[in-house]
Amino acid sequence: MRATTIHGTRDIRVSDVPDPVISAPTDAIVKIVAGCICGSDLWPYRGDNEITPGDTVGHECVGVVEEVGAEVTSFRPGDFVIVPFDHCDNTCAHCRAGAQAGCVNLGFTETGQAEYTLVSQAEGSLVKTDGRPAPSLIPSLLTLADVFPTGWHAAVSAGVRPGGTAVVIGDGAVGLFGVLSASLLGAERVVAMSRHEPRQAIARAFGATDIVAERDKAGVEAILELTGGVGADSVLECVGTDQAMQTAFKIARPGSTVGFVGAPHGIELPVRRMFTKNIGLAGGMAPTRKYIPELLERVLAGGIDPGIVFDLTMPLDDVAEGYRAMDERRAIKVLVEP
Amino acid sequence: MRATTIHGTRDIRVSDVPDPVISAPTDAIVKIVAGCICGSDLWPYRGDNEITPGDTVGHECVGVVEEVGAEVTSFRPGDFVIVPFDHCDNTCAHCRAGAQAGCVNLGFTETGQAEYTLVSQAEGSLVKTDGRPAPSLIPSLLTLADVFPTGWHAAVSAGVRPGGTAVVIGDGAVGLFGVLSASLLGAERVVAMSRHEPRQAIARAFGATDIVAERDKAGVEAILELTGGVGADSVLECVGTDQAMQTAFKIARPGSTVGFVGAPHGIELPVRRMFTKNIGLAGGMAPTRKYIPELLERVLAGGIDPGIVFDLTMPLDDVAEGYRAMDERRAIKVLVEP
Repeated sequence: MRATTIHGTRDIRVSDVPDPVISAPTDAIVKIVAGCICGSDLWPYRGDNEITPGDTVGHECVGVVEEVGAEVTSFRPGDFVIVPFDHCDNTCAHCRAGAQAGCVNLGFTETGQAEYTLVSQAEGSLVKTDGRPAPSLIPSLLTLADVFPTGWHAAVSAGVRPGGTAVVIGDGAVGLFGVLSASLLGAERVVAMSRHEPRQAIARAFGATDIVAERDKAGVEAILELTGGVGADSVLECVGTDQAMQTAFKIARPGSTVGFVGAPHGIELPVRRMFTKNIGLAGGMAPTRKYIPELLERVLAGGIDPGIVFDLTMPLDDVAEGYRAMDERRAIKVLVEP
Repeated sequence: MRATTIHGTRDIRVSDVPDPVISAPTDAIVKIVAGCICGSDLWPYRGDNEITPGDTVGHECVGVVEEVGAEVTSFRPGDFVIVPFDHCDNTCAHCRAGAQAGCVNLGFTETGQAEYTLVSQAEGSLVKTDGRPAPSLIPSLLTLADVFPTGWHAAVSAGVRPGGTAVVIGDGAVGLFGVLSASLLGAERVVAMSRHEPRQAIARAFGATDIVAERDKAGVEAILELTGGVGADSVLECVGTDQAMQTAFKIARPGSTVGFVGAPHGIELPVRRMFTKNIGLAGGMAPTRKYIPELLERVLAGGIDPGIVFDLTMPLDDVAEGYRAMDERRAIKVLVEP
């Protein structure tokens, strides 16, 4: 099949790779209807994560079940499914405690920008829709594979509560979903830290009440001014860099929690400040499967349109151009059609 | 007045220092009935914290109000009071949110092993008893100035819940109060990591159901075996060293929270593990005042005897011997009588 592969820094290709095959009774194969490029795909693209040339890349997709292993009983060929990027059995002690990202049988989508993908632990991981969704709904459903639950996890981890002030650091797609999630969870004031006009517009559409374009010291001062010197009730760190994390701990009020979901790169946590100000850190890789049913319900109920985050659609053959567009911030998030 | 002062590594003296005076309308002066030595006093004692020779040392005490400033209306000379080591106005935005350790008017007890102490923000900080307590109750009341609320804060921050398994790292007095607190909060299994027999005995008296004497790798393995490979529902890090913190994150189950209350010394938080396993960190310097009323009620109700943690009592003049005894682990916690 054709799949997206990475061969070096900024070297993305579409290659012929072996078709996935059912090798365990818990596996399923999904024919991809739509995939997309994640902000985290840019880490290896930019040379910030090690790769082996020829590795497949991409982990977000929705599609139609093609084939299932013997132990997969809730899904059959033809079902339209959302594929969480992190696969879990949803039955182990960690899953039962709501920590599906720590599942003892954890697996990952490895060909999300491709024709097909293999889902390990399909029974515990997949979520199906009633019948084939309308094409207009596909982009919104696709956000459920990773980016929406990840933004949601940031908001939940940061303890967003009705009436509070939530500040979202990072205006990538995850940050934008942090904004949407904080808004849906009832924050009265949702501040998006963004200096990029098209992203500010989506942040506002997603419920941001305030935009702070400044960063670092000026950004911290702006947030403190907005909050009467108190700091934010909840901070969502949706980047993963040390700069973003340091800002998070400077704007979080004493006793609050920073929710983080960006894969950490070069972060040194300010443990003295965390101690003296009682600012906690929670979050991590999202337990995607846990949140999908609730978020799917919200998507199907209407009133939100998460799919607007996709501002560029590319055919699989042109996926490299999609990476370039995201790398150069010409696109927020790119949908890839096999 | 006579007060404990520090002059260098392992150089503790009793010196004549100026009597405290009311300099702000929010101040009060308390005549100390009993003070004590904190595990954190050993950091400067051992040369691990910088000092200025002649600094007073000690921050835990109970006593009788001697004099109050004009704005202190709830207390009068003669009241017996618990003096939280961290003073707060209990009215600012941080205090109202339960983060009293982040009070905008934060102050600290600076002469807790002395004849008198000055309490800034006395109105918001002090908690009085009904009348003068029986001498036998003084040690238990003294634990409310710091060590009990600090252990309680570790348990609350670690999210100890009825029915769960809590592991306490550190068998200093704070760790022992972590054990007591986890037990009072309903943990079904409370594991004390301790290899010191007298401390194990107090841990058991405080509700520990299991003792793990091993440390580091062997300690981690012992906890994982105790928890069926799952890890602890709650971990209380009551030491403040990197070694203790690394152990904490290795034994905490995915999705759980490490509660920390030991002033951090040389800690590098394992952010990658926190991310991949969704293990949060919460806690810090205890909002002592917040917890005192509830804990005082528990002390007065009986059924617990927190005062047993004091296994050595010294007159103020011999306070240096108290430090030596704690430093050499000959005493768990030393009560100092002015």
